[in-house]
Amino acid sequence: MLFKVEMDVNIPLDYDPARLDELKAAEKALSQELQRAGKWRHIWRVAGQYANVSIFDVESNAELHDLLMTLPLFPFMDIRVAPLCRHPSSIHEDDR
Amino acid sequence: MLFKVEMDVNIPLDYDPARLDELKAAEKALSQELQRAGKWRHIWRVAGQYANVSIFDVESNAELHDLLMTLPLFPFMDIRVAPLCRHPSSIHEDDR
Amino acid sequence: MLFKVEMDVNIPLDYDPARLDELKAAEKALSQELQRAGKWRHIWRVAGQYANVSIFDVESNAELHDLLMTLPLFPFMDIRVAPLCRHPSSIHEDDR
Amino acid sequence: MLFKVEMDVNIPLDYDPARLDELKAAEKALSQELQRAGKWRHIWRVAGQYANVSIFDVESNAELHDLLMTLPLFPFMDIRVAPLCRHPSSIHEDDR
Amino acid sequence: MLFKVEMDVNIPLDYDPARLDELKAAEKALSQELQRAGKWRHIWRVAGQYANVSIFDVESNAELHDLLMTLPLFPFMDIRVAPLCRHPSSIHEDDR
Amino acid sequence: MLFKVEMDVNIPLDYDPARLDELKAAEKALSQELQRAGKWRHIWRVAGQYANVSIFDVESNAELHDLLMTLPLFPFMDIRVAPLCRHPSSIHEDDR
Amino acid sequence: MLFKVEMDVNIPLDYDPARLDELKAAEKALSQELQRAGKWRHIWRVAGQYANVSIFDVESNAELHDLLMTLPLFPFMDIRVAPLCRHPSSIHEDDR
Amino acid sequence: MLFKVEMDVNIPLDYDPARLDELKAAEKALSQELQRAGKWRHIWRVAGQYANVSIFDVESNAELHDLLMTLPLFPFMDIRVAPLCRHPSSIHEDDR
Amino acid sequence: MLFKVEMDVNIPLDYDPARLDELKAAEKALSQELQRAGKWRHIWRVAGQYANVSIFDVESNAELHDLLMTLPLFPFMDIRVAPLCRHPSSIHEDDR
Amino acid sequence: MLFKVEMDVNIPLDYDPARLDELKAAEKALSQELQRAGKWRHIWRVAGQYANVSIFDVESNAELHDLLMTLPLFPFMDIRVAPLCRHPSSIHEDDR
Repeated sequence: MLFKVEMDVNIPLDYDPARLDELKAAEKALSQELQRAGKWRHIWRVAGQYANVSIFDVESNAELHDLLMTLPLFPFMDIRVAPLCRHPSSIHEDDR
Repeated sequence: MLFKVEMDVNIPLDYDPARLDELKAAEKALSQELQRAGKWRHIWRVAGQYANVSIFDVESNAELHDLLMTLPLFPFMDIRVAPLCRHPSSIHEDDR
Repeated sequence: MLFKVEMDVNIPLDYDPARLDELKAAEKALSQELQRAGKWRHIWRVAGQYANVSIFDVESNAELHDLLMTLPLFPFMDIRVAPLCRHPSSIHEDDR
Repeated sequence: MLFKVEMDVNIPLDYDPARLDELKAAEKALSQELQRAGKWRHIWRVAGQYANVSIFDVESNAELHDLLMTLPLFPFMDIRVAPLCRHPSSIHEDDR
Repeated sequence: MLFKVEMDVNIPLDYDPARLDELKAAEKALSQELQRAGKWRHIWRVAGQYANVSIFDVESNAELHDLLMTLPLFPFMDIRVAPLCRHPSSIHEDDR
Repeated sequence: MLFKVEMDVNIPLDYDPARLDELKAAEKALSQELQRAGKWRHIWRVAGQYANVSIFDVESNAELHDLLMTLPLFPFMDIRVAPLCRHPSSIHEDDR
Repeated sequence: MLFKVEMDVNIPLDYDPARLDELKAAEKALSQELQRAGKWRHIWRVAGQYANVSIFDVESNAELHDLLMTLPLFPFMDIRVAPLCRHPSSIHEDDR
Repeated sequence: MLFKVEMDVNIPLDYDPARLDELKAAEKALSQELQRAGKWRHIWRVAGQYANVSIFDVESNAELHDLLMTLPLFPFMDIRVAPLCRHPSSIHEDDR
Repeated sequence: MLFKVEMDVNIPLDYDPARLDELKAAEKALSQELQRAGKWRHIWRVAGQYANVSIFDVESNAELHDLLMTLPLFPFMDIRVAPLCRHPSSIHEDDR
Repeated sequence: MLFKVEMDVNIPLDYDPARLDELKAAEKALSQELQRAGKWRHIWRVAGQYANVSIFDVESNAELHDLLMTLPLFPFMDIRVAPLCRHPSSIHEDDR
């Protein structure tokens, strides 16, 4: 099941740079792990903003929520979620 | 180059059903043609709404604009466009 | 899987009253059928508005979308959907 | 009498973790007490956000207000309240 | 129990004047009846707009909803409802 | 002359509790003094929020402004003001 | 007493031109009459829009409302009103 | 050339009172100087808010910008600017 | 003097195509005339929308307003205007 | 390929002035370098605000994003991006 998840990241100006780098590294590692597992199907950067548009492929709302809660940068994020489903015009078999 | 394009479709209640079916059929045909051509990379239905989230893969802003202008349902649409680019965490080679 | 679905109904002033009554009757019948089937778990009226707050219990985003598309009053509605999941404080077993 | 209450929780990044855990534990205990008392009829997590959608069942606006004021996390919350009432299509006897 | 109810009235430019006068007369009659009954405790005109701010005094959300549904001008209205309760600073005994 | 004044109070989480209690006490005292003087005609709590809806009865915009400026909690408030006047349907003599 | 009144005028595309010219002429005549009477102290056009920013000088909210209700173009207007008062920095004696 | 300039002033709660008084005095002095010079044609207080509505009379956008940049309270302000011009109904010769 | 002018064009679905083509042709002719005169310095299409972002170079607010009023498509437009001035970082001499 | 980029700059009141001057100098230097390179085609100041409207001329979304990320003031900015393309009425050859 697919969800559009938009994440805007807001880092306080005075946040500890070293700590932030750790969080970013952990975020990247987890994101890539979830991408390899097929959960985090797409992640694109929104040009000009510290934000991304992602497509998650999960079994349930709960799984989506649990995944997002584990993101190291979750506390810095404004997140908007929209449930998606197959479009009648789509030619892609797996674009459920 | 990727763009997120969100299309909300608003059909007047008293619109001619037969004419609408023609437009929808033409829209589907053109959409599938563009998907096969790789221009319209993804199209998902937003659950609960007559709207879609799409990812277009085009050479320029102008090409994106020209494609969207040819959509039979364009006059019925509220469209929002966001330019995307590769996310540093993405593991997908072609997710430019 | 639970979804909050908020439906605002906007009927044009000059809409054919008889036709509207038919649609409302059909809407009520379908709603009650879906409630009995456990799909439409809750429906409440928002005091002072021609709108409802509903909780749907479905297997997937697609099922939610398909159900909402069949509602006779769908063309008159502004719909907002939010995916829900079990709250860690909930004491209700089935409040998945 | 039912009310939809939506609570968005905003915890400052630098808030004392230990103090926060105490507050969260107290919040959960009070919430479950109110759920058992039938006052807090439903609480669901909004997928992807530190927010919940709740249905309260109280005798009056004042009772609702007093209950919400006692929530340990109240100072961290943006709260939106909508008064609900029985929907003519509802099949649930107690869904006043 | 008190509710703030704000009503913005939008009359189409081409609406039948005679019919509108009937509706307005019926609206005024019903409003005054409800005011005498103590249900519609206050009604003020918002300066510069075809809108009012009202305070209703009812037993429940349902009663509020039913009253508002009977207003002849209901179909022309955008309505916003906020539940009120006694303010700790209020010196008025009956300002529940 | 009547004005609707809506006051949302936002207290920083780390504000000195003792100082806040003083301010609240002073606010209550001044509010009740103005109520007794007939200037602050109504004050209701908005259920679920640290906010009130008030009706002021003053001689001019300037008097309203000066009164609001003297409120001890003014610096913590988001205030919205709407000028009111007698509604043609009102049955209350003094609801100018 | 001064009020800022902002008026956005929305004329339907298919409105009878001759009738509109009559309304505009009547609006201009009444506006100039009120300006000469000192009630309509200022009227400026917002560059690029069919809208104006005006300053009214009236005795009460009610007088403001009554004046605005008499404007021939009132039914075509979105109006926003803000009560003004003398600014402590103002050097103009009559800029109450 | 006239511009409507709306200034909302937001002073942090913990800002140094003495420093603020200096800034306010400097702001008042500069404002009155510009008023005497005819640049700052009108300044009114918005009742109930730490905000003003002003009309500036300047030779160009650049002059407006430079003037506003010199305001001691500029860093505390949210400013909205709308270019104005003579209204066809205006009877005031100098209300360019 | 430069102004950013954003124009969203909304054509009713049932508008007479022939009449619209005439208006569009007249709009294009006038636009190009103003561009050649240096008044309409830039006009760009917003990708995906029937809207443009333009930069006007005029002597005054009034001239801007008068020009925009003459646009054949003005009645179909939502227009937003922002006054611009030279940026301290600009290297372009004439980018007043 | 052209993009409209709007940048609102928000500097905390207590930010180190010396450090800010360094950042501003670096921002100006980089901006002028990009302007000379033809990437940053236009930059205008929005009158009355610490904000600019810019037109970027880049090869791709990615190039736009990378450029904006290098701006020393990026962390202080709210940025909005709109992809532009040649308007059919434009007389400028290079206004792609």
